[in-house]
Amino acid sequence: MTVAQLSEAELLARIFPRLELSALHSAAVVLGPGDDAAIVAVPDGRTVISIDTQVQDQDFRLEWNNGYRTTGYDVGWKAAAQNLSDINAMGASATSMVVSLTMPPDTPVGWAEDLADGLTAAISKLGAGACSVAGGDLGRGRELSVTVAVLGTLDGGQPVLRSGAQEGDTLAIAGRAGWAAAGLALLESGHHVSSLPPELLSMLELQCRPEPPLEAGPLARMSGATAMMDISDGLVRDGTRLAVASHVVLDLDPGQLGRLAEPLRPAATLLGADPRAWVLGGGEDHGLLATFPAGMQVPPGFTGIGSVQACGADKAPGVTIAGRPADSVGWDHFAD
Amino acid sequence: MTVAQLSEAELLARIFPRLELSALHSAAVVLGPGDDAAIVAVPDGRTVISIDTQVQDQDFRLEWNNGYRTTGYDVGWKAAAQNLSDINAMGASATSMVVSLTMPPDTPVGWAEDLADGLTAAISKLGAGACSVAGGDLGRGRELSVTVAVLGTLDGGQPVLRSGAQEGDTLAIAGRAGWAAAGLALLESGHHVSSLPPELLSMLELQCRPEPPLEAGPLARMSGATAMMDISDGLVRDGTRLAVASHVVLDLDPGQLGRLAEPLRPAATLLGADPRAWVLGGGEDHGLLATFPAGMQVPPGFTGIGSVQACGADKAPGVTIAGRPADSVGWDHFAD
Repeated sequence: MTVAQLSEAELLARIFPRLELSALHSAAVVLGPGDDAAIVAVPDGRTVISIDTQVQDQDFRLEWNNGYRTTGYDVGWKAAAQNLSDINAMGASATSMVVSLTMPPDTPVGWAEDLADGLTAAISKLGAGACSVAGGDLGRGRELSVTVAVLGTLDGGQPVLRSGAQEGDTLAIAGRAGWAAAGLALLESGHHVSSLPPELLSMLELQCRPEPPLEAGPLARMSGATAMMDISDGLVRDGTRLAVASHVVLDLDPGQLGRLAEPLRPAATLLGADPRAWVLGGGEDHGLLATFPAGMQVPPGFTGIGSVQACGADKAPGVTIAGRPADSVGWDHFAD
Repeated sequence: MTVAQLSEAELLARIFPRLELSALHSAAVVLGPGDDAAIVAVPDGRTVISIDTQVQDQDFRLEWNNGYRTTGYDVGWKAAAQNLSDINAMGASATSMVVSLTMPPDTPVGWAEDLADGLTAAISKLGAGACSVAGGDLGRGRELSVTVAVLGTLDGGQPVLRSGAQEGDTLAIAGRAGWAAAGLALLESGHHVSSLPPELLSMLELQCRPEPPLEAGPLARMSGATAMMDISDGLVRDGTRLAVASHVVLDLDPGQLGRLAEPLRPAATLLGADPRAWVLGGGEDHGLLATFPAGMQVPPGFTGIGSVQACGADKAPGVTIAGRPADSVGWDHFAD
């Protein structure tokens, strides 16, 4: 059965029950789906808000080179995860989301149901237990597309911006780096999904269902992080953005980069790739990059990977590896 | 120049200045675009929220039968207007929106700039002066698509739901009914846009740039409206939804329907159509349908068009015209 064979009301009747999360969640949603708009509680007096769209063949493919088929569950999970990560990156916790789903008429109803299941699963399994789906919109298009707008709370605290890093701060990362990039390389490879050993399969799954470290953002804020952002486009590209916003240099420790690359080695060996390229360039794990005041221990979940240095006449804001500009350092140039 | 020829940062640098509204607006936006998420003030402790997507060839066509070309300005205006209408329909005022724009790589940069101009113009010209664009997202796809999520405030008041209509209430409408439908019929007709007289051109323009009556929603709430919704799918279809939610019958006055149809007569004559069909079936004007307690004068901007009656064993919730079910009344059956 395709979505074209159901009325909007019939399709919503299949989707809504899948979006009902635990009783806990009802606290934030004053008025849920069914009227012209939803109403969400914002006791803090301010809400964090972000919006992000996943489009078929841009942000996901329905079928991959290596035979993997993206499920509705994957797409729902990824849409939720990416948006939850933006809230996390401010040091906030998600309170609610609204979802707009555009589908071609020949989309199987089961696929849309799976998407709702994936959304719900990501919210609950990633630890965004206070977040619920307050409302949404269904529509038709030639390609599948999911937009999520998410609200979050700082619980009275101050947001952690990209612009607060100070000379001498410790640079740290939470979550994975390079796993989703390794997974993407596997999906695009000729190595059939059924032939992959479990540790490589888990990289592939992290590309399809990323796991942002949602506890780390609020913890970093409460621990006094000076700057933070999520790594959605890669450590060097996003690090450069943070460096520019803070007018500093982020210097990465090659030894720590090597340690981050180590678990990716089996995939790199299979594909003849350099795992450090995935660590530096891969983004879709939605790890957090944060800076903490000098001398303090980074909070649990974070690992120090470098330090913050001042800009100077000969040092523009950016990312360096052991003092050399990251974008001029070939992957084979930086030491293990 | 196409959007593919610019980096995301370059494109945003062209769009952001167009989204800067008057100094007034900065009050609601605590943190604007440029970080992982935006922060918006919600002094009321609750926020109304809605999301809506416009997709090319579904919600708008780039080129119409009659030669009219949809501009980026039209699409931006319509995306803002539809979302502002959902907030209006709760009796609330919009405070901020986030926008996700998906474009094919060959989209002219000027088209995206026009879209931003159209968004801004709709917000300010429709009277949502306290609303600003807090953030957004840019991405690629095969078809143009714009999703807006909008927040609104009830200023401490109670929302006007679909479910509160009571027997004896006056049924009233604010804004236009049928104009956008007449405009759609003109766009799809063989009558070239350059041949249309001004009064027909204005109908066409209302299809492309609808004008929801944004002052009417909060006014209805403060005046004691018992139920309200926006008419996005037509008076009979949306009225039926309100009737079902309130478990009542909405009985329309044929004389009032005739008066609503009167200004549409020139278009109907040109196209050989029945203007009353546009009044009953056309939705995209985003007028408001509301009910008010018996005996009170409806607030300025609203016109009484019928009354609320009780359901009974022989009367299911729905819409009637002078007592006869609207969906069984042919357009030629109800009196002028």
